[in-house]
Amino acid sequence: MKKIVLIGGGNQCHYTADIINKEDKYNIIGVIDSVHEIGSKVFGYKVLGRQENIKELIDKYGIEGGVISIGDNWARYCVSSQIKKLVPLFNFVNAIHPSVVIGENVDIGEGVVAMAGCIINPKSKIGNFTFFATGAQVDHDCNINNFASISAGSITGGYVTLGKYSAITLGVTVIDRLKIGSNTVVGAGSLVLKDLPDNVLAYGNPCIIIKKRQKGEKFLK
Amino acid sequence: MKKIVLIGGGNQCHYTADIINKEDKYNIIGVIDSVHEIGSKVFGYKVLGRQENIKELIDKYGIEGGVISIGDNWARYCVSSQIKKLVPLFNFVNAIHPSVVIGENVDIGEGVVAMAGCIINPKSKIGNFTFFATGAQVDHDCNINNFASISAGSITGGYVTLGKYSAITLGVTVIDRLKIGSNTVVGAGSLVLKDLPDNVLAYGNPCIIIKKRQKGEKFLK
Amino acid sequence: MKKIVLIGGGNQCHYTADIINKEDKYNIIGVIDSVHEIGSKVFGYKVLGRQENIKELIDKYGIEGGVISIGDNWARYCVSSQIKKLVPLFNFVNAIHPSVVIGENVDIGEGVVAMAGCIINPKSKIGNFTFFATGAQVDHDCNINNFASISAGSITGGYVTLGKYSAITLGVTVIDRLKIGSNTVVGAGSLVLKDLPDNVLAYGNPCIIIKKRQKGEKFLK
Repeated sequence: MKKIVLIGGGNQCHYTADIINKEDKYNIIGVIDSVHEIGSKVFGYKVLGRQENIKELIDKYGIEGGVISIGDNWARYCVSSQIKKLVPLFNFVNAIHPSVVIGENVDIGEGVVAMAGCIINPKSKIGNFTFFATGAQVDHDCNINNFASISAGSITGGYVTLGKYSAITLGVTVIDRLKIGSNTVVGAGSLVLKDLPDNVLAYGNPCIIIKKRQKGEKFLK
Repeated sequence: MKKIVLIGGGNQCHYTADIINKEDKYNIIGVIDSVHEIGSKVFGYKVLGRQENIKELIDKYGIEGGVISIGDNWARYCVSSQIKKLVPLFNFVNAIHPSVVIGENVDIGEGVVAMAGCIINPKSKIGNFTFFATGAQVDHDCNINNFASISAGSITGGYVTLGKYSAITLGVTVIDRLKIGSNTVVGAGSLVLKDLPDNVLAYGNPCIIIKKRQKGEKFLK
Repeated sequence: MKKIVLIGGGNQCHYTADIINKEDKYNIIGVIDSVHEIGSKVFGYKVLGRQENIKELIDKYGIEGGVISIGDNWARYCVSSQIKKLVPLFNFVNAIHPSVVIGENVDIGEGVVAMAGCIINPKSKIGNFTFFATGAQVDHDCNINNFASISAGSITGGYVTLGKYSAITLGVTVIDRLKIGSNTVVGAGSLVLKDLPDNVLAYGNPCIIIKKRQKGEKFLK
């Protein structure tokens, strides 16, 4: 089995490890993290080093790939960009829980994480470094752009577009054929009935725009 | 494997084909459709002809059954009626995704389509030509009448009745023991706390009646 | 296979039996119930006797364990207490539908019932005699206390605490890091954005406190 690392030692590290262990395709040899002490353990995995030293770590440990285990979309973008700059051909693998159902003609990028119970229907396009939490559902012919995320229990109708870095949070329903811009966050429990532009926070039933957001502004607690 | 056709060449055709291919019980030999040119291809399947010529098509292609792949409930009723008139013993098969969970003592009719992740609990009665989209949940002792539908992520409590031709759309919650009449549509994201009569459009949290509907009035975009 | 009984002959008895039959780990030899006539049948299972006679029934029928199939949280507490008083080492088994997904390092108590499609994420703690209805989702690092329940289609974020005897009913979303007290009921379709104290009924989008509740007050119809 290929030796891989988890990049990011926070909460998401734990359930990403769970997915990878259940897939049984890769061997997690450690964690790359910018906070925890090198040599210490997170969720049972040794912290091997910092991402800025990824080149040396690859040589030292024989790392053959990795998954970014970070929930914040913008942070996932920054980390992947830095690694790609240092190691342009770094092998970002996917972590797809065995219970995930993927329809025909779904196009899935690299570095995608999908937790238990997700369903992605035919002809949807799933961008790079997207994240799908427990039981997220993407209907047919959707377009989920790079670094976007859909949280637990949220569902989209068919032909929905979700822009780059945008986050649909917990328990959201998005009806058919809507376009949600990039860097936009939809708050928990929302019912989205209209398109949403770039760079906004929106929520409610029905969902309305609450305020503008900056690129990279935090949305997870 | 029995040779079957998909009747209806729109979007629903694609994910119905996906289900049937994953079930691996039937061989889809083509599509019967009233719009696409005969001989052209939809989602990789040849358009064999029109439904009004079903008798000749059966003879010509050795068709042994079919599934109606049409999302609109009333249209599904009209098409099934026409075919039954022309070929009274036509074999309408079910398309049940392998991930669907069906409880003990569930009674399932003919021509039923259930997408990935649906759960139907014990002692529920599932009528003919009903449609269950991704992750729809029907609790115990429910009665889902002919030509009714439940869209993605919607759930019913126990002992719920859904009338003929009625549609529960995306992300709806219906509490226990309610009766929803026939030809009624419940809009997306609704929380249904009271019975609903026949022939209405209703939505909201809590769900209220918005207006009367005509038989066969469109509800899908 | 170990011979077990279902304790409680109401609706929950039927789907608990369905789960146990699909798990294929135990042999249900009958039902213990305080209402139905002894010797009569419920859902195909013989009523063996009353719970106050559990000791004699164990001797007579060679009962090796049981599951309480009662939906009301307080009633489940009362019944389990009485049985534990009479037979301190009674073997309360779990009924976990084969489709349920359980993450790494989840700690599960005794007498737990989880219906089809439930997902429990890593490091959550699932108390004794808890009940999870169809498709309920518990995210990572949650703490679901003894005798609590989560109904169909309801989801929690990570680090959520649900107090003893408390019930999250149908189609509820609870965001990350909230604490819901004990003996509290969250009504259907609610979006919970703030902590909730002990002994209240709360609902709405967003969820607000509606009234105080007494210990053991009924919440199911």
